[in-house]
Amino acid sequence: MRVFGSYSRGFLSGSALSLSCCAVWYGLLSPPGLRCERPHLSDSNLPVSSVVDTDHSLEDIHQLDTSREILKYGVPDRGPVVRSYSGHALAYDQARRVPVWVAEHLTPDSVVGPAHRKHSKFKPDPNIPAMFSAQNKDFLQSGGWSRGHMAPAGDFKHSQAAMNSTFYLTNVVPQNYENNAGYWNRFEIFCRDLTRSFSDIRVFTGPLFLPNVVEGQKKYVKYEVIGESTVAVPTHLYKLIVAENNSSDQKAVGAFVVPNEPLGFDHKLTEYQVTLEALEGMTGTTFLPLINQTKLVDLCTVDTCQLLSAQKFELHVLSSRLRNAKNREKLDKIWSELESKKLVPDTFITEIYEKKRKEFEIKEKQKSEL
Amino acid sequence: MRVFGSYSRGFLSGSALSLSCCAVWYGLLSPPGLRCERPHLSDSNLPVSSVVDTDHSLEDIHQLDTSREILKYGVPDRGPVVRSYSGHALAYDQARRVPVWVAEHLTPDSVVGPAHRKHSKFKPDPNIPAMFSAQNKDFLQSGGWSRGHMAPAGDFKHSQAAMNSTFYLTNVVPQNYENNAGYWNRFEIFCRDLTRSFSDIRVFTGPLFLPNVVEGQKKYVKYEVIGESTVAVPTHLYKLIVAENNSSDQKAVGAFVVPNEPLGFDHKLTEYQVTLEALEGMTGTTFLPLINQTKLVDLCTVDTCQLLSAQKFELHVLSSRLRNAKNREKLDKIWSELESKKLVPDTFITEIYEKKRKEFEIKEKQKSEL
Repeated sequence: MRVFGSYSRGFLSGSALSLSCCAVWYGLLSPPGLRCERPHLSDSNLPVSSVVDTDHSLEDIHQLDTSREILKYGVPDRGPVVRSYSGHALAYDQARRVPVWVAEHLTPDSVVGPAHRKHSKFKPDPNIPAMFSAQNKDFLQSGGWSRGHMAPAGDFKHSQAAMNSTFYLTNVVPQNYENNAGYWNRFEIFCRDLTRSFSDIRVFTGPLFLPNVVEGQKKYVKYEVIGESTVAVPTHLYKLIVAENNSSDQKAVGAFVVPNEPLGFDHKLTEYQVTLEALEGMTGTTFLPLINQTKLVDLCTVDTCQLLSAQKFELHVLSSRLRNAKNREKLDKIWSELESKKLVPDTFITEIYEKKRKEFEIKEKQKSEL
Repeated sequence: MRVFGSYSRGFLSGSALSLSCCAVWYGLLSPPGLRCERPHLSDSNLPVSSVVDTDHSLEDIHQLDTSREILKYGVPDRGPVVRSYSGHALAYDQARRVPVWVAEHLTPDSVVGPAHRKHSKFKPDPNIPAMFSAQNKDFLQSGGWSRGHMAPAGDFKHSQAAMNSTFYLTNVVPQNYENNAGYWNRFEIFCRDLTRSFSDIRVFTGPLFLPNVVEGQKKYVKYEVIGESTVAVPTHLYKLIVAENNSSDQKAVGAFVVPNEPLGFDHKLTEYQVTLEALEGMTGTTFLPLINQTKLVDLCTVDTCQLLSAQKFELHVLSSRLRNAKNREKLDKIWSELESKKLVPDTFITEIYEKKRKEFEIKEKQKSEL
């Protein structure tokens, strides 16, 4: 018996999935809503599945009978179509151990608040059977791949619980470090900043595995797999953005496909824009099945689609560091960095600095009075 | 705007999926059956989806509300979990344009009959939107990849309709020619021949994309994509076999992973055997969610798991050619090949030859009498 990788863990021991399932149908009529009907079965390890009869109506019953016989031992289960969390929803690829898409809803209120990533920890999603799950050590031992959030932690400042659940590894792909901290970070800030112009922003984010090798006439997809769990390293990452104002029917849509590599400041976001249909072809996914196609406009015609400049991005990073400074010395050191780099502080960062400074002064005063 | 490959066909034109959907729940109690409930919506372009609330019960309602807001424009649609045909059922990968798994149910009666592949034609599955479908020309222009059936045409001799539907490209992957005509053909014959020992055989067949390149410490998955539709060429193919007799509760299970390359006669089938769990890890799929795990035995302990020898395989191929011979000259030419190759004809092939010969003699006699 030939054994592939580290997969063999005991003969014929199928994994027991214990999922609490619920079928959801999306209504056609507005407002499109979820109708959730649970099977009346308490101890449900049942796969919930949808079937399309692909031959024509008169034969439907016959074919369902046939399928029932064929699939006597259940519909092969690749996990639920949607997994729902406090602040995001996703579909997960149990074979590649990365998400397929992760969806979130940003509003002016949801991107602000007290939640902080220092309270969050990356961990395997407890809802995924171990054999289909990535593990922290897959990334830590890979030497070169960061744990890249798909729904960004920073989008969930309104709720620590929602932020925490973005640290489940179902929301993570192996991402180039520099891309993650740099270009992609600026892209995420861009999405959050859209809340200044739009009341509702929906974002779908995920990995792609695109042809990236040409040899003679032949094209190949080649991607690394890391760790014992063989987590797939995407060649590209995508975001699909749907932005709208509650005052208008119009929806601004932008789809972007960014290579999973260092990108620096020379590439405009519009270089990576693709059509919605192109993204759907690459992912095999129809993202917005219920949207009114006639009301869509290109996001980059109603917004500049410009990411933060190098200088503004540096200010942004320094403002985060100021906010997280643990004492007055550290605060002042960061502030002096700003001056030595000849960055011009804006009102926003100046306010952070002064507020933090006052807090430290009060604390020091209280301490000296004790 | 950067355009990837041939994907961009008009800005923001989402594909209109017009699927007749039906949600199916598998009952826990025996006999496990399908309960099919259709939404009362006639013009349904609705994705039918399952949701798992991944945080815990008290928060369920809140999370469904959240998901409803996030997924206001519908659950991203990757096609139905199961597609059901006259004789087989399958799940389809819209991104790679190949199936994920194809399931069939073989019985002693289903593998015999008058249906013939000369009446069948490979064609795109009309149920798959064009942007997610393979096309015949993807294969014909690829120079090197055959259209490999997953559920084999030869398993459906009882029904021409069932055989025809195996020629939809949803049941096909790009397969090495020699593998398809040789080793894999013998593997398929092996499965059909199991109907001599078992009353019911269920087979799941599909493509795999496994790590196949090692560079230093790093492992990669590399596979070709062919044609304008970028159909993915699997690195390996799998079969999962569940064989049983209606006289017994015991089920014999065998899982096999075969490289998509020429293999000749030197490799035993058992070389490619893996555990069910290993196959589940590679595919991200729990194949038999409702099966009683305690009643499973290894197929290769109750069956020899031997493929046809080179000689017997050659006899098999010649017997097919005899059956398809168009006139007496051709019949005799094939028969003489058999003698020149020093193959010993068995009763089965001798009967075919004699039956066909008589048919031709009668025809010739009738002709000369006209």
